[in-house]
Formats: sequence, structure tokens, C-alpha cells
Amino acid sequence: MQFGSDNWAGASDKVMAALVAANGGDVPAYGGDDITKRLERRMAEAFGREVGVLLVATGTAANSLSVTGLIPPYGAVICHRGAHLNTDECGAPEFFGSNKLIALGGVGGKISRGGLAELLDRPLRGVHHVVPSVVSLTQSTELGTVYSVAEVTELAALAHGKGLIVHMDGARLANALVHTGASLAAMTWQAGVDILSFGATKGGCLLAEAIVVFDTAHLERLAYLRKRSGQLVSKHRILSAQFDAWLDGGHWLELARQANAMARRLAEGMIASGKARPAFAPEANEVFAFIAEPQAERLLAAGARFYDWDADLLEPDEQPAAGETLYRFVTSFRTTPEEVDRFLALLAQA
Amino acid sequence: MQFGSDNWAGASDKVMAALVAANGGDVPAYGGDDITKRLERRMAEAFGREVGVLLVATGTAANSLSVTGLIPPYGAVICHRGAHLNTDECGAPEFFGSNKLIALGGVGGKISRGGLAELLDRPLRGVHHVVPSVVSLTQSTELGTVYSVAEVTELAALAHGKGLIVHMDGARLANALVHTGASLAAMTWQAGVDILSFGATKGGCLLAEAIVVFDTAHLERLAYLRKRSGQLVSKHRILSAQFDAWLDGGHWLELARQANAMARRLAEGMIASGKARPAFAPEANEVFAFIAEPQAERLLAAGARFYDWDADLLEPDEQPAAGETLYRFVTSFRTTPEEVDRFLALLAQA
Amino acid sequence: MQFGSDNWAGASDKVMAALVAANGGDVPAYGGDDITKRLERRMAEAFGREVGVLLVATGTAANSLSVTGLIPPYGAVICHRGAHLNTDECGAPEFFGSNKLIALGGVGGKISRGGLAELLDRPLRGVHHVVPSVVSLTQSTELGTVYSVAEVTELAALAHGKGLIVHMDGARLANALVHTGASLAAMTWQAGVDILSFGATKGGCLLAEAIVVFDTAHLERLAYLRKRSGQLVSKHRILSAQFDAWLDGGHWLELARQANAMARRLAEGMIASGKARPAFAPEANEVFAFIAEPQAERLLAAGARFYDWDADLLEPDEQPAAGETLYRFVTSFRTTPEEVDRFLALLAQA
Amino acid sequence: MQFGSDNWAGASDKVMAALVAANGGDVPAYGGDDITKRLERRMAEAFGREVGVLLVATGTAANSLSVTGLIPPYGAVICHRGAHLNTDECGAPEFFGSNKLIALGGVGGKISRGGLAELLDRPLRGVHHVVPSVVSLTQSTELGTVYSVAEVTELAALAHGKGLIVHMDGARLANALVHTGASLAAMTWQAGVDILSFGATKGGCLLAEAIVVFDTAHLERLAYLRKRSGQLVSKHRILSAQFDAWLDGGHWLELARQANAMARRLAEGMIASGKARPAFAPEANEVFAFIAEPQAERLLAAGARFYDWDADLLEPDEQPAAGETLYRFVTSFRTTPEEVDRFLALLAQA
Repeated sequence: MQFGSDNWAGASDKVMAALVAANGGDVPAYGGDDITKRLERRMAEAFGREVGVLLVATGTAANSLSVTGLIPPYGAVICHRGAHLNTDECGAPEFFGSNKLIALGGVGGKISRGGLAELLDRPLRGVHHVVPSVVSLTQSTELGTVYSVAEVTELAALAHGKGLIVHMDGARLANALVHTGASLAAMTWQAGVDILSFGATKGGCLLAEAIVVFDTAHLERLAYLRKRSGQLVSKHRILSAQFDAWLDGGHWLELARQANAMARRLAEGMIASGKARPAFAPEANEVFAFIAEPQAERLLAAGARFYDWDADLLEPDEQPAAGETLYRFVTSFRTTPEEVDRFLALLAQA
Repeated sequence: MQFGSDNWAGASDKVMAALVAANGGDVPAYGGDDITKRLERRMAEAFGREVGVLLVATGTAANSLSVTGLIPPYGAVICHRGAHLNTDECGAPEFFGSNKLIALGGVGGKISRGGLAELLDRPLRGVHHVVPSVVSLTQSTELGTVYSVAEVTELAALAHGKGLIVHMDGARLANALVHTGASLAAMTWQAGVDILSFGATKGGCLLAEAIVVFDTAHLERLAYLRKRSGQLVSKHRILSAQFDAWLDGGHWLELARQANAMARRLAEGMIASGKARPAFAPEANEVFAFIAEPQAERLLAAGARFYDWDADLLEPDEQPAAGETLYRFVTSFRTTPEEVDRFLALLAQA
Repeated sequence: MQFGSDNWAGASDKVMAALVAANGGDVPAYGGDDITKRLERRMAEAFGREVGVLLVATGTAANSLSVTGLIPPYGAVICHRGAHLNTDECGAPEFFGSNKLIALGGVGGKISRGGLAELLDRPLRGVHHVVPSVVSLTQSTELGTVYSVAEVTELAALAHGKGLIVHMDGARLANALVHTGASLAAMTWQAGVDILSFGATKGGCLLAEAIVVFDTAHLERLAYLRKRSGQLVSKHRILSAQFDAWLDGGHWLELARQANAMARRLAEGMIASGKARPAFAPEANEVFAFIAEPQAERLLAAGARFYDWDADLLEPDEQPAAGETLYRFVTSFRTTPEEVDRFLALLAQA
Repeated sequence: MQFGSDNWAGASDKVMAALVAANGGDVPAYGGDDITKRLERRMAEAFGREVGVLLVATGTAANSLSVTGLIPPYGAVICHRGAHLNTDECGAPEFFGSNKLIALGGVGGKISRGGLAELLDRPLRGVHHVVPSVVSLTQSTELGTVYSVAEVTELAALAHGKGLIVHMDGARLANALVHTGASLAAMTWQAGVDILSFGATKGGCLLAEAIVVFDTAHLERLAYLRKRSGQLVSKHRILSAQFDAWLDGGHWLELARQANAMARRLAEGMIASGKARPAFAPEANEVFAFIAEPQAERLLAAGARFYDWDADLLEPDEQPAAGETLYRFVTSFRTTPEEVDRFLALLAQA
């Protein structure tokens, strides 16, 4: 009954097997090896176009390099106030580029068209003020919801109209694709995304994060910035072998499908129980639910793993009622129906 | 005949087996797992004292966080001019802390007592000048030589006497221990090292680098800086399982012993051949050798892998003679006597 | 009828005379001169205690060095969302220390006790999150209001109770002292302020800004950071002579008294006219007033100088009514009653 | 007998008069005033072309913004090892852009063609290494020598040929122009300089430093960086009025002529005395001279002001003989023949 995080799970068997297979023999370091080349080709195929791919060690680095690497230091990064890069990365974006973040509210963890338009419609008033330069969309969001392709397209068009570029934090992109049925291309560059943090770690690898940049003219600059920030892994195949196996044959989407299904099963069971109330219909692999604290304590005592969560991330009309506390449940590719049902049985008695 | 780099080799079988074994089951992220705890205990044992351990993704990050994390931004980092952090990390130390590096010369890639003393004896002249704050020693050095315990002790005493702290870049520390026969404790904290980049990647893992800090009061600060620089790997066991297996039962020293022996065999064979002249007696797992360029070209054409190297890193009286070019050969735990001998046979005919 | 800004005025005659007098003769650079020493003594007297004084070139630098200079890079700076350092310094605080700013709302441009307490009461949740480290209070605020000594004391006590330090952005501190009648000591260190941006430029100099730090143990660190950020002015007397003359004999408070009185006169006239509605009773030298845009246009066309202002800085219940626009009027020591009355006469006909 | 520094002198009478005159009346802040506009026109005239001008508060800031503002963070700044930005700015360039400096030797404080060519001829070896991006020439140099127009042209051509840009640190540019007789245009953009730190402080103002950029497409970026680094002075006329008066009618060259003449008189007197030996024929307003320490002590005791200097800045064959110590003497526009002769009389008896 582990719903603590999807980064508590290890790698899928297929990914591990590929990693073991990749270990044999001496190969060039720093991405000069054949597995990395194969991954680059596979990425191009998956996106249906030429892409620049830079593997890095963490999602924090992928996000921070992506949002700061292509803008001037006085450029501002627009994101949802609940975005990982605003709240959970210890100021990493400010460190990587000394850029300022501008955080917007928005229901369900999503930036709204209105909110973004209002910000971007303000005239620039000169050197005293940072210049909005990147919009970062988290897909799936930090509240387990998903932007539709239409929503991404609309927000990206707004941003491009004002000269900004668009970043997608895709630590859980696979889950969003499974939910929407959209292709990788449709959800990213075709919708207007310029640079993507493409995460495979949460979705079934042990460590595999990529920056994908669609205008490959930026690749050289990003490659230098990656090295300089200590993100160029020498025995590079450890990253590429995992990512490559994960993408191979739709494996990644299968894993995400399982995680999403388990979140849905969990949420439906909660509703049925009358003892837990999901704040949102889960669209990816996270359930945010209101539970009375004493009941939650009993669940935790019985061995369930999940965290209480900061309700401040919810908008005013999403807040818990009196007596309710917000908790986060995350499912992964390893979560089984039995595990969910065991938890729901416990909940029924809590 | 791969002498390109020790980071072309993968991980040892034992390390890979441990990684595979660690993948089962869900465990807490970010180092809260049992394998990381076991590694921390093993580190304390290996060093013979309480230590603070922070696993990071690259040696560049280990070095940059170590040399800048404990000093003010106006503190200067003293290192050999050939040190990895001065020449091969794309300005990473300058990025992590905006600190200035002060590079010293010195024969065989080593900072000399005289050179360091001369620098540190200069009186501080106030706010116009950076303040020497860290001395970084590379062990083994970038030229394949090794500081003795006495040398480290002497340099560290000098540094401490002027209020500086001492960093050791131990990307190839295992090779230095094998060469000197010194213990981990004797070569590091007992000799005056305050903070250590302890590398296991080159020595037989796929990706396993640690910052080891001996005054654990600094641990919290470094932990925040690690997160903030995108170096806190979420599925942390991928790092700790490798490092743990590497340290277990003297495996790491065995691997280093093999690499060192192969470098010695290579150097001796070179001398015997009369066709290549090692610039230094190899003390670790690197041989820097002068070869006539046409001969080197023939070796490369025949499939040997090694790089020409910047002779500017050598002191004036270490320079190649006319007609000679400097080349670097690196051996690893995977290098076999047969491989070396095959190369030497080729060299004999070159 | 210049209400554009108090930095449109030059220096007072007394300040200019002192500057001219200081120019004679060769004196040591970088603050080693007698005028700077005299200023340091005068500052100590003015504050009633030993203080560390660092003159810098701009208020932006004073603020940025003050809020970032004494905290770690992962420390967060808490300020009002309308604070100059959050909105008008082009990300300078993020540049100087790569620190993250956390902006709070609050009526009248002031951080509220409740808002600060709520933020500080949240438990720290580890390395994923920046650590609140400084609270910055703007005195007078960006909306022309003033914190009472009691308010500063209460907020500072809250901050200290959680281990934070307290910064005051005193670009218009003189105006706040005149309004409250409090002494410099009472409003700063006795109320709990640890470090102060003490501005004399807006109040009657051409260029004179100081960082005042009450624990002089921090002076050396700040002095290095000042030099390193290009803020150590060589012919230092240009700063100290101005500041010294400004502080001499209560000149600075006289100048502020004039500016404040003119703001009050302006606000009262506005109310009497029925054509402009001050958003707040002016407590310092700024009036924020709601005016119908066509009328404002006529005033501007007639030669009055003032700016429309971002109503987003106001809290929801402070917002303009339909048909009203927010404008800012700033008075200075040079503003005369005649100038104000001329404007009011114009307003009556607008 | 003040030869401590040219920043011990104040401003010329003409400059001060202009500053006083500029103080009257309210004018727009941040450079929107007429005096700044007049200065911009005068600069364009002086350079014989359109130029971008950004006034800043210190030479350190002018240098740091200039060398880092137009290059990526992984770009390296090439300078002489004795350059102010390498030795006397407390790591400011590393702070402003986190760029690495690469220091070259060279006789008389000058970068040599050979030294620069050797560095630039090395092939770039990829992301592990910083990319040489700016060459910074100090004119006059830190050793009181002057690059000829031909030398600047040659070095700039070399730099441009490899894709680098060229910066000139012109803190004492006026002195170099007087020495060579070259025009401002000939010595800067016509010789290949792309961006210039143009200093007027040492040469006769109290505080007036400019960044001059010849490709005005860069102006906006630099203007943002200036603001963000706390270098945009609000009551801007304090800078522009000084600079404008200094440039007016050749005043600046007159002042430099006086300073240069006094340095020459001093050096000639030293040679004649047989008691002090100039290390170089002074070409600007500095004399570096070898004197026996006891004699120097006697001069200092008698009230002369000058500093001992770091002989390490001299090349091997420029070093002092046994018994000699290196001292620096700086003259300014205020230095009189009487003052020099008084010193020489003292020297004769020392």
C-alpha cells in the first residue's frame, strides 16, 4: 500500500535488463556510444521530427536548464505557483540562471488562459522589470490533472504571440499522453512546446531524464550549459540504455497506463467508501483526496504510505471543508489492483 | 587496446549484480532507503570515523560543490593548473559558486610545497582581492602521479596554517591508495583533508560519486546546495547500491590494483620497446608517453585507442623533445595483460 | 507641478555645498578619507550605537546586498509583493545571491502579522524547499504608508523567533521617521532591524546610499561582497560628503518634513476637489489617488507630471471603482506649496 | 608628494562647476534628462560614429558588465595576468557572469601577439572546456605602458579571426591617447575594439564611468544587465554632467597631458638621481620603479605617498635586482612640477 511517490518504485524489468546488457564492453564516454545514438534516433522517431536530446541526471536539472538556458538573465519564468520548479526544487531555477520566477494561480494546478493573458498583456515598462520570457507548463500537473492538447496549444500561442518560449515539465508526460490519447508530437512541438523536460525516472527507469529541444540550433549552447552545471554523465549509457528500453515498443505508455488505471481505481474506491473525497478526478497517476485526519492516521498506522499535502496549493474554492485534510496518493507502474483494494478495504473500516 | 579513458569501461560484474538486486521493491526516495543507510555505515567504517556522505551524479558536481560550498563567494580556490576543475569542467566551479580559481604550476601535475607557500605567504591586501580559501589536491593527479601521505600532510598543514580548508579530488583515489599502500583514513582526514570528492565511477561503477565531508556540521548546508544544483538523485539506490558493492570486501582496491598493474606493464613495455617514452613513471592508472606522431598514427590506425594530450600541462623541463608528441593512455579494471601485450607488439612494429 | 518621482529632484543646496567643499585636495580612496570617517562617527551617533556602514552606488545594490549577503543561497527573502526589490529591480536580488523571493500580500503595501506568521509557522520540509531567511520591510512602503515602531517590532520579533533576520529598505526612511516621530534607533535596531538600506538620494542628495549593519561582525563579509559587485566607489568622498551633510543638524528630517507636508497638502486638496480620491491617507511623500482617466489626461496635457500605477499592487478591497484609474504622485523636498496649489487649481477645472 | 593613486585626486574645477550647474531643477531620472542626452551626442561626436553609452558607478562594474555581458556563461575572458579585472576586482567578472578568466603573461603588462595566437590556435575540444570569447586589453596597462594603435589592431584582428570580441579597459584611456596621439576612434572601434570601459574618474571626475558599445544592437541587453546589477544610478545627471564637462573642449586630454608629463618628469628625475630605476619608460601616468627598501622607507617617512608593488606581475627578465624593491608612483591632473621636484630633491638625499 505504497502511495508515497512514484519515485519509490525502481525500474521495470525490461529497463533493468537493458541496463545490464549495456554494461558489457568498453564504449566511448559522454554520449559518444552507440546506445546513445540509438536513443537519439528513437527520440526523433517518437517525436516525428529532428530533435535535440540532452540526457541529464535529475528532473530538477532538466527543468532548470530548460527554463533558464535559452533566455537572458533578466528574463522571467512564468509558471503555476504549485509548479515543481517553484516549490520543490530549492530555488534551483534561480541558481541555474539567476532568473526570477513569476508564479500564477489557476484551478487544478493549471495555468489558465485568462491568468496568462492578463500577465502578458501588461506592457513592458523597461529595464526596471524582468521580462517574461518562458512559460512553463507542468504536464501532468502537480495536482494530478492534465492539460488537453487544445489547452497547451492555446497557452503556447499566447506565449509565442508575445515573444516567449514554451517549456513543458514532462516528469509525468507519459501519464498525460495515456489520459488524453494524444501522441508525443501532438502534445509537445505540434502544440507549441519549444523545449521539454522529458522524464523517464518516475515512469519506470531508475534514472533517466532528458531535455528535448525542438530547434536544434540551441543544442550546442545547452550542451555547454549541461557540462558546466555538472550534468554530463560520463558513462552515458547508464542513462541512454534505460531511456531507450523504456521508449521501445510502447513500453513507457504501458507502464503509464497501469499507473493511471490504479489512480482511477483508487479514486473511485474512495468515493464509493464515503470516507475520502478526491479533490479532482484523477487524470494521471496521482489522487489528491480530503480525509479526516484521525482516519488518515489510522491508515498510516496500518502501514499505508501517503503524505499530507499543502492545501495552500489549492485555489480558494478548492479548499477542504472543516475537518478535512488534504492528502496525496501516487500510484506507479508497480502498483497492483490488489494493493489498491487492500487499501480500500482498510479505508472502509477507518 | 582501449586506452582512451577509464570511463569507457562499464561497471564490474559485482557492482552490476548489486544494482540489479537493489531494484526490487518500493523504497523511500532521496536517500531515505536502507541501502543508502548501509552505505553511510560502510563509509564511516572505511574512514574509521563519522563522516558526512552526499552522493551526486558527476565528478564535476562533486568537485564544484566541494570547493565552493564551504567558502564565501570571494574565496579563491587554489589548484594545480592542470587540475580537472581548472581545465576540464567548462568553468563549473566558477558556475557553482562564482569563485575564482588560482592555478599553480608544479612538476608531475602536483602542487609543490614551495609554490603553495609562496602564494599563501603573500599578505592579504584587502577587499580588492579574492581570499585564498581552499586548496584542492587531485589524487591521483591528472598526470598519473600520486601525492604521498607526507606530501598531502605537508600541503594541508600549510593551508590550515593560513586558515584555508583542503579538498581532495579523488576521482582516482583508489589508484593512489593502491600505489602508496596508505589507508583511506591516512590519505584523507588524517593527512588534513577536510572535504573529499570520492569517485567510484572511473574505478568500476557506472555512476557513483560522493562528497565526503569530515566535519558533519557542514552536512546540512551541502545537502541544500546539492538539491539546489540538481544533484539530488531521486531513486537514490541507483547510486548507493553501486558504491556500496564497490566498497564491499576490498573490491574497489582490487579493481584499482588491476588498473595500476596494467599501466605499469604498459609503461615498462614502452620503455623496453624504445619507441615510446613515458614522461613519468606511472603511479596510478595513466601513462603519459612521448611518441613520434607518425608512429602514433599507425597505432591508432591499427585500432588502438588513446588521445594526444596538451603538453602545455607539463613544466618546462618535462616537455617533449623535438619530434615527440605527448599521448595519454588510461587503463581500467577491465584492461587485461593480453590487451596491453597486443598493443606492445604493435608498438614494436610501429 | 512635478510629481513624477522624488528622484527627479537634485540635491539640496547644503548637500551640494558640502560636495564642492569635499573636492579640494588629494585624499585616500575607497573610504580611507577623513570625510568618510566623520560620516561613520556621525552614523554611530545618529543610531546611538556602533554600526557598520557601507556606502554603495544605488538603492538596488543596497537592497540586494543586504538581503542576500548574510544568508545562504538557499535562503529565501520574504517581502511584500509590491516591494521594490520584488517588482522594480529587474531581478537584482536574484542576481546578487541567486536567492528566491517569497512575496506576501498585505493591505496598504505592508506585510501583515498574520500573513507573515502563517508563512513562518509552516514547518520546514527539508532540502526540497528554500528556507525563509530574511524578512524585508519597506519603510515607507511603496504605497506611501508607514509601519509604526510597534508594527516593525512585532514583525521583527516573529522573524527572529523563527531564526530569520530583518532587513529594512529605507529608501524613504526619513519620511517614515518624520511621520511617526520615532528616532532612527527606535525605528531600526531597537525595533529588531538587523540590516538597513539607508537611502539619502531620494531625500536630498544626488547619490548617497548606505548599507547599515548593526552586528559589525558582518562588516568584513559585506565589504568583500560590495567590492566584488562593483559597488565600491573609488573617490569615496563623493558619497560620504553628501551623506554627511544630509545627516548634519537634522537637515535630512527637515527635507523629509517638507516632502511629507506637500504630500498631505496634495491629498487634502484632492479630497476637497472631489475630483481625485487618495487610496490611502499619505503618511510619507507619496499620494496614490484614483482619478478618471480623461481628467488625468487633461492634467498631464497641462504640464503636470505623474504616473499611472499598477492597481494590481492593491489588495482586492483597495481596488479602484469603475471609471477610476490609479495614479502615483510623489513629492520631494523641493516641492513647494505653490506648486501643489497650482496643480490643485488645475484639478478643480479638470 | 602624493603618488599613491590617481583616484586620490578629486574632480577638476570645470567638472565640479558643471556638476553644480546640473543640480538645479527637477529632471527625469535614470538617464531621461537633457544632460545625459547631450553627453550621448557628445560621445557620438567624439567617437565619430553612433555608439551605445551606458553610465555606471564604478570601473569594476564597467569592466565586468562589458566582458561578461555579451558572451555565454561558458565563454572565457582572455586578459593579461596583471589586468585589473584579474587581480584587483575581487572576482567581480566571475560574479557578474560566472565566466572563467584565462590570464596570459606578456612583457610590460601587455598581451603579446604570440601569446594570444598560441592560445587561440588551440583547437576547441568540446563541452569540457570554456570557449575563449573575449579578449580584454587594458589601455593604458597596469604597468603604465601603452598599446600602439597597430598593436591593438593586430590583437583585435587575431581575436576577430577566431570569433572573439574585443574589450578595452580604458580606465586610463585618455593617458594612452595623449601618449600615442591617436584619436578616440582610431584607438578603439577603428582598431577593432567592440566594447569599451571608458573611465573618467581617474582622469578628472569624481565618479563617471561609461560602457561604450559600438554595435548598438547590444544596447538593450546591456541596459537590462546594468539595472539588474545595481548600476543604474537614479539621479543620472550626477554621472553625465561630469562626463560631459570632462569631454568638453578637449578638457580630458589636457588633464591627461598634465598627468603624463608629470610621470615623465618623475621618471627622468629618478634616472638622473641614480637612486631609483624605472622598470619601464612611463608612457602614461604611472612610474614603476625599483628602489632600495631603506631608501623608500625614508621617502615615505618624509611624507611621500606611494606603494610597494607586486613584482610577480613582471616577467622573469623584468624582475628587480638584489636589494631592489618595486614601487608604484601614480601622477594625476593635479600633480604639479613643484610636487615632483620636491620629491626628487628628497630622493637625491635618500
